[in-house]
Amino acid sequence: MAKINSHFSRLNSPYIFPIIEEKLAVLQSQVASSSILNLGIGDIALPLAPSVVKAICQATQEMGIQESQKGYGPSEGYAFLRENIAKTCYHDLGISAEEIFISDGTNSDTANFQELFAHDSVVAIPDPTYPVYKATNIMAGRADTIIYLPCTEENDYLPQPPSCRVDLVYICSPNNPTGVALNRKAWEKWIAYAKEHEAVIVHDHAYSAFIRSPDVPSTVYEIPGAKEVVVECCSFSKTAGFTGLRCAWAVVPKALPHHLHALWKKRVTTKSNGVAYPIQKGALAALTPEGKEETKKQVDTYMEQALLLSSGLKKLGFSCFGGLDAPYIWWKTPPGMHSWQFFDTLLENCHLIAIPGLGFGQYGEGYVRLSTFTTAEIATKALERISQL
Amino acid sequence: MAKINSHFSRLNSPYIFPIIEEKLAVLQSQVASSSILNLGIGDIALPLAPSVVKAICQATQEMGIQESQKGYGPSEGYAFLRENIAKTCYHDLGISAEEIFISDGTNSDTANFQELFAHDSVVAIPDPTYPVYKATNIMAGRADTIIYLPCTEENDYLPQPPSCRVDLVYICSPNNPTGVALNRKAWEKWIAYAKEHEAVIVHDHAYSAFIRSPDVPSTVYEIPGAKEVVVECCSFSKTAGFTGLRCAWAVVPKALPHHLHALWKKRVTTKSNGVAYPIQKGALAALTPEGKEETKKQVDTYMEQALLLSSGLKKLGFSCFGGLDAPYIWWKTPPGMHSWQFFDTLLENCHLIAIPGLGFGQYGEGYVRLSTFTTAEIATKALERISQL
Repeated sequence: MAKINSHFSRLNSPYIFPIIEEKLAVLQSQVASSSILNLGIGDIALPLAPSVVKAICQATQEMGIQESQKGYGPSEGYAFLRENIAKTCYHDLGISAEEIFISDGTNSDTANFQELFAHDSVVAIPDPTYPVYKATNIMAGRADTIIYLPCTEENDYLPQPPSCRVDLVYICSPNNPTGVALNRKAWEKWIAYAKEHEAVIVHDHAYSAFIRSPDVPSTVYEIPGAKEVVVECCSFSKTAGFTGLRCAWAVVPKALPHHLHALWKKRVTTKSNGVAYPIQKGALAALTPEGKEETKKQVDTYMEQALLLSSGLKKLGFSCFGGLDAPYIWWKTPPGMHSWQFFDTLLENCHLIAIPGLGFGQYGEGYVRLSTFTTAEIATKALERISQL
Repeated sequence: MAKINSHFSRLNSPYIFPIIEEKLAVLQSQVASSSILNLGIGDIALPLAPSVVKAICQATQEMGIQESQKGYGPSEGYAFLRENIAKTCYHDLGISAEEIFISDGTNSDTANFQELFAHDSVVAIPDPTYPVYKATNIMAGRADTIIYLPCTEENDYLPQPPSCRVDLVYICSPNNPTGVALNRKAWEKWIAYAKEHEAVIVHDHAYSAFIRSPDVPSTVYEIPGAKEVVVECCSFSKTAGFTGLRCAWAVVPKALPHHLHALWKKRVTTKSNGVAYPIQKGALAALTPEGKEETKKQVDTYMEQALLLSSGLKKLGFSCFGGLDAPYIWWKTPPGMHSWQFFDTLLENCHLIAIPGLGFGQYGEGYVRLSTFTTAEIATKALERISQL
């Protein structure tokens, strides 16, 4: 009788997406699909940038010729991409190409990093936040050693260091779903905490390109001491429209304690054979001046909708947060309304899909998340319909 | 003080590739690189098939157009690919598309599947074999509960079911490094063992396309009862030249015990966002009649070198195995010579790179592995030089 990992059975978080899909299917049977406004899923809405398309096609054609044929690449990613990221994103911050690991997604990196820690480590996770940190720690047997960090209106939705010691902390900033980012002061507090308690912070920085506030660092390594306590996970998914292409990177500094850099390298080289060569070439293209200009336009488009929706909702008398440094708006439900009730109201009356805040943690109750990965046309329509609620 | 996964420190297997690279670097400083014959690494030597190149470029261009833009795909892989694999590879064997999970490599799948098992599970691993099964189980804390299954000349290099109970078994067939494949009879024995002990078998089937012997099944699901005990991991890497593109699949049947199908689905959907859309379209192209014809030619080329090398070595009086159903030859070292000594002899006298058998387990001592992923020109040159030893 094979012994199964019993921790999977502790995954009892409400599985919201199938419920949303079911409710959506009912609506789709009643109205035309084109009249449904989907501000639910946090996925890109614009096509891949031309320079990225060109680079992927060129790299693929290269692989089809004997002289430039390519087999296995390095598990950690090609040097051309790692070096370019080090130069482009961490110029003058002392991050070397060797400290950068290419992967197929920040989802994978934030899911896998916990493997380097003991199974009874204490883990701090903001609530609400991206559900993968919690799920993967439960699967690894840490259901009883997770500490949740409430992010509420009272603390401006900023996770606060706990009063006790923890081993591992997850911070998603700009945050999914609240859209709120840690400023320099908030980061300094966390870095001081991590140093005091010898904790390690995993920073999910997938939304780095959306930062607009001058007091929010564009990388955590701008903050002194960060290299000794923070792993920063960045992605081409939202910054360059790569959700369907899968390419990201994690910065795992050599200055981290416990040889974490060497352990991560061991993990990466054992459990993976890296990312497709053409995809890495596409990522490289996204970092060129031309690629940056093209992808910046897309990010700007999404942020225009964030501004449109957030100011529109406020004008209508609603309370909402985020949307300044992230493509998400954290919309407070009307008094006395639960997040699922408000979800139903929006779906039935506006044919608008939002995500109930409860899907991101218990402190998500009382909110819905609006994604601003959309067009001006849809955002405007959404506001019109909401105004008639 | 963060608590680290102490199991990583149990990874004490000789890390052979850096040593090989060092020795190679010394040789490269002495002779022209073009005169070095690399039959070490098990990586493709031929360019990507034209129909695969075409499909990847088309899919990428599709992503660059608003109307056909693509974001996140399903974590388990696109239905178009899963359905095609079910039809093409498991026709009439009752494997459904839902039981097929697309991933970025059989390396990842065989590395990750152990997560579904309890940390104190007993694991059986052939020796010699692909080192990832052992390393990932050690990382997960099973260093003391691994049972090794010796594959020696006495048992025709076929792993034999142990006399005791185990939870999880790894079988790589056709095997890397011995090049030997399990025939129907050998599989029947294993399936009976697994049923008796309620064990689960992970079958690494990355070399499926190289099978030539009529009594070796092209998939384990040809053997009655296999669906209830075997997970089969297949790959486009070696069969279609995808080592640099990363695409594979695992068959995780619903008939497996302990809801393993549901657990794997949970793991996949939580820890991954799937494989790039263009790469999956490239994989689909490899399954069309045109793609199959192109990739079969490549596999045939590698197998011609297997025949050339293996018959050549035998004519020269050497003892060697494998090469019939796999692109690897398991070459017995001359009497009294250790595998590293023979490696050095081949490197120094023939400028030929082989892999010391010890890199694949302690029963690999006394052998080197030759990869036949090469051209007729290089294989012929290698034999000429070996004949002058």
